[in-house]
Amino acid sequence: MQRQKLFINGGRLKDTIEKFADFGRTDKNGVTRLALSKEDILVRDYFSSCCKELGMTIKVDDLGNIYATLAGTSDKPPIVIGSHMDSVKKGGRFDGVLGVISGLEVVRTLVDNGIKPDIPVTVMNFTNEEGARFEPSMMASGILSGKFDKDVMMKKKDPEGITFGEALQASGYEGDAANRLTEACAYLELHIEQGPILEKEDLSIGVVECVVGMVCYEIEVTGESDHAGTTPMDMRKDALFAANDLIAELRGKLGALDSELVFTMGRMNVLPNIHTVIPNKVVFTIEARHKNEDVIREVVDIIHGLPTVLEDCEVQITKLWGRDTVWFDPAVCAAVEASTNSFGYSYKRMVSGAGHDAQFVASYIPSAMIFVPSVNGKSHCEEEFTPYEACEKGVNVLLETVMSLLP
Amino acid sequence: MQRQKLFINGGRLKDTIEKFADFGRTDKNGVTRLALSKEDILVRDYFSSCCKELGMTIKVDDLGNIYATLAGTSDKPPIVIGSHMDSVKKGGRFDGVLGVISGLEVVRTLVDNGIKPDIPVTVMNFTNEEGARFEPSMMASGILSGKFDKDVMMKKKDPEGITFGEALQASGYEGDAANRLTEACAYLELHIEQGPILEKEDLSIGVVECVVGMVCYEIEVTGESDHAGTTPMDMRKDALFAANDLIAELRGKLGALDSELVFTMGRMNVLPNIHTVIPNKVVFTIEARHKNEDVIREVVDIIHGLPTVLEDCEVQITKLWGRDTVWFDPAVCAAVEASTNSFGYSYKRMVSGAGHDAQFVASYIPSAMIFVPSVNGKSHCEEEFTPYEACEKGVNVLLETVMSLLP
Repeated sequence: MQRQKLFINGGRLKDTIEKFADFGRTDKNGVTRLALSKEDILVRDYFSSCCKELGMTIKVDDLGNIYATLAGTSDKPPIVIGSHMDSVKKGGRFDGVLGVISGLEVVRTLVDNGIKPDIPVTVMNFTNEEGARFEPSMMASGILSGKFDKDVMMKKKDPEGITFGEALQASGYEGDAANRLTEACAYLELHIEQGPILEKEDLSIGVVECVVGMVCYEIEVTGESDHAGTTPMDMRKDALFAANDLIAELRGKLGALDSELVFTMGRMNVLPNIHTVIPNKVVFTIEARHKNEDVIREVVDIIHGLPTVLEDCEVQITKLWGRDTVWFDPAVCAAVEASTNSFGYSYKRMVSGAGHDAQFVASYIPSAMIFVPSVNGKSHCEEEFTPYEACEKGVNVLLETVMSLLP
Repeated sequence: MQRQKLFINGGRLKDTIEKFADFGRTDKNGVTRLALSKEDILVRDYFSSCCKELGMTIKVDDLGNIYATLAGTSDKPPIVIGSHMDSVKKGGRFDGVLGVISGLEVVRTLVDNGIKPDIPVTVMNFTNEEGARFEPSMMASGILSGKFDKDVMMKKKDPEGITFGEALQASGYEGDAANRLTEACAYLELHIEQGPILEKEDLSIGVVECVVGMVCYEIEVTGESDHAGTTPMDMRKDALFAANDLIAELRGKLGALDSELVFTMGRMNVLPNIHTVIPNKVVFTIEARHKNEDVIREVVDIIHGLPTVLEDCEVQITKLWGRDTVWFDPAVCAAVEASTNSFGYSYKRMVSGAGHDAQFVASYIPSAMIFVPSVNGKSHCEEEFTPYEACEKGVNVLLETVMSLLP
C-alpha cells in the first residue's frame, strides 16, 4: 500500500521561527538566549504550551532536557527529533532552535493529517548545547551519553559565579533522571549548516554522515624580551618571528594534505605586546578537522614534527584536546537520503565540521543529521539566516524520514 | 702645562650606586622608583643632601628638574652632567641614575683634589624620563627643548588619575621656571647601553654619536570571522594568514636593507581570538630604527609597498609616529673619544637605539653621551647590571671629558 505523501506547512513554519525568535530577539534581529536565562525559560514555556496544544505529554529530565511526546499506537521506543533552543550571545534565529521547531512542525503535520504513529514521536530540547553560559558545549547530551560527569557539570559556573546546578534549579526545569533519553528507534537532528558549502554549490539538503574528528594544540614559543631599539637583529630571540615561521610551515604542510582538511590558528597572544619590546612569548592554537582519522594522524605528525628550537626560541607543543570522527548510522542516513530524493531536492552527503548534540546521542542511538544552507555560511552572529523555503524543504525531508522510519 | 690626570674613586662609586638603589629596591634587587613617587622624592632629597655636602648649590625648575652646581671661578655657562633617577616598574639599579651618580662622583673627585673649575659644573636630574608613570617619556627634557607643551604635560595622568602637575606640586619639587637649563658649555650624559653590543664586542666604552631615527606603523588586516570547523580553506578570509604573509614579506625585505637596521613587530592583537573561530582582524605594529634617513626612507617605501588586499583580506597602513636621527655635537663626541683614548680603554663609536634626555637637550646645547656595557643587554628589568669596574671606567671618561672641556 502506498503511504500518504505529507508536506509540512511552510507558512506556519516561518511564523513559528519568528515567534520563537521573539524570546531574546536583539536589535539587529538576532537572538541572545543563553542557557537557563529568562529568555530560555520563556521559550521553553512557550514550546511546552505549543506541544500540549497538540496533545503531547511533556517530561523533563534531571538535566532540564525537555521531551514532548506524541503518543504512538504502541509504547515502543520513540523516534526522537531534537536540538537545542539556547543560543550564543548575539547569535542567530536558526542555530539549534530550528531543529526543535522542525520537530514541532512535524508533529503538527501529523496531527493535521489525523495520523497517529505506530510508535511515539518525541521532540527534544537539549539544555546548554552552546556552552556559551556554562562551558563545555553540548553539556546535557554529553552527560546523557556518559561523556561528561554530572556532578562536575553541575558545579560549572557562568561568568557571574552562578553554577549550572543553581541555574537549573531556579529555572523550574529540573526534572527526574528517570525521564532521561535511554533508548529510541532513531534520533534525527535538523540544523543549519553553519558553513558555506550548500549555498555555494546551490544545494538544498545536506545528508550529514559524520561529525568530523579534530585535534587542537597549543604552541608556545619562548624567546627573549629585549629593547627594540638597542638589540641588533642577529642578537635577538624574537618569539614572534619564530611563531611566524611555524605558522608558515604549518600552513604549507597542512595545506598539502587533503582539500577537505580545515585548520585554523584562531587564538594568538603575544607578550609583552608592547611596540618597543621584542616579544618573548607567543602562544597560538592550531586546530584541525577531518573525517578521516588517517588525515588527522598526519596532522598530528606534522605538529609534532615542528622544530623544538627555532631562531633561538624554544617551541613547546601541548595537546589541548581531540575527538574522533563520529559516524552517523548508515541506515538512518540512507533514510534521510531517500527522503530527500523522494522530493527531488538537490543534496550532497557531507560532513559536519561543527559539533552537535547528535554526535553524543549517536553513541547509543541510531542517529543522523539533516543540514539546510546558511546564507554566506554565517552562524553564531545576528546575520545568521536560512531562507524560509530552504527551512521548509529541510523539514519536509525530516517529516518524510520520520514517516519512513515508522515501523 | 700638563694638566693633572684624575681618576674617580671606584669603591665610593659602587657604594653610591647601591646607596641610591636603596630608594625603591625590589625583592629581586631591582628598583621601582616611578617619577615623583615617594621613592623618587626620597632619592631626590638624598641626592640634594650629597651635593650640599660638597658645597654645591641646589636649584629646581618649574618641572622639578634638579640642578646641583659646583661654582666655578667664573660665572660663565656651566658644563652640565645629567640623566634621570626615575625608573620603570621593576627596573634596574643603573638605568638613568648611574648618569646622575656619575656627575656626583665627578664633583666629589674635583672637590677631593681641591679643584675649583673655571666654569660651573652642574649635575642635573631630569623629571620623568621613563614616562612609566606619566606618558610620554623624556617629558621634562621635552618641555625644556620646546618639543612638548608644558600645559598639556601638566595634565597628563597616572593610572590612578593623578596629574603630573598635582604630583609635582605635592612632591615639594616644583621650583621656578627661571632656573631652567637655557645655556651651557656642554651637556654630557653617561648611561648604560641597554643593548648587547659593547659586551658582545668586549668593549668598555661607547662613544655615542646619535640617537637613531625611527618610524612606527600600525598594520590592520581585516578578513572575515567564520566557523573554524565548517568553512573550507578556499572559502576563508583568514586575517591571521594574511598577517603572517605580511610579516614574512616585511622581514624579508627589511632584513635585506642594512645590517644596522633594527625592526620589530612588538604588538599584535588577533580578533576575536577564539580557537574555533577564523580571525577576522589582526593588528600589528612595525617599528624600525636606523641612523641614516635614507634607510628609514626605504623602510617607509617597503611598508607602503605592501599589498592593500592579500588573501581576500584588506590591509590598512597607518603611521603612528616617527622621529629623525639626533646627531650629537662632533666636538663633544671627539672630546669623549679623546678622553677614552687617554685611559687606553677599548671603545667604539656607536648609535643609541633608545631615546634619552640628551636627544632633546642636544637641540640647543652641544651634547654627547657615553655608554657603558649592559650585561646580556638587559635593561628595564631587575636583572639589569653593569659591573662596577665598567661603571668606574665610564665615570673616569666622563671626568676626563669634563676636564678637557673646561676652558
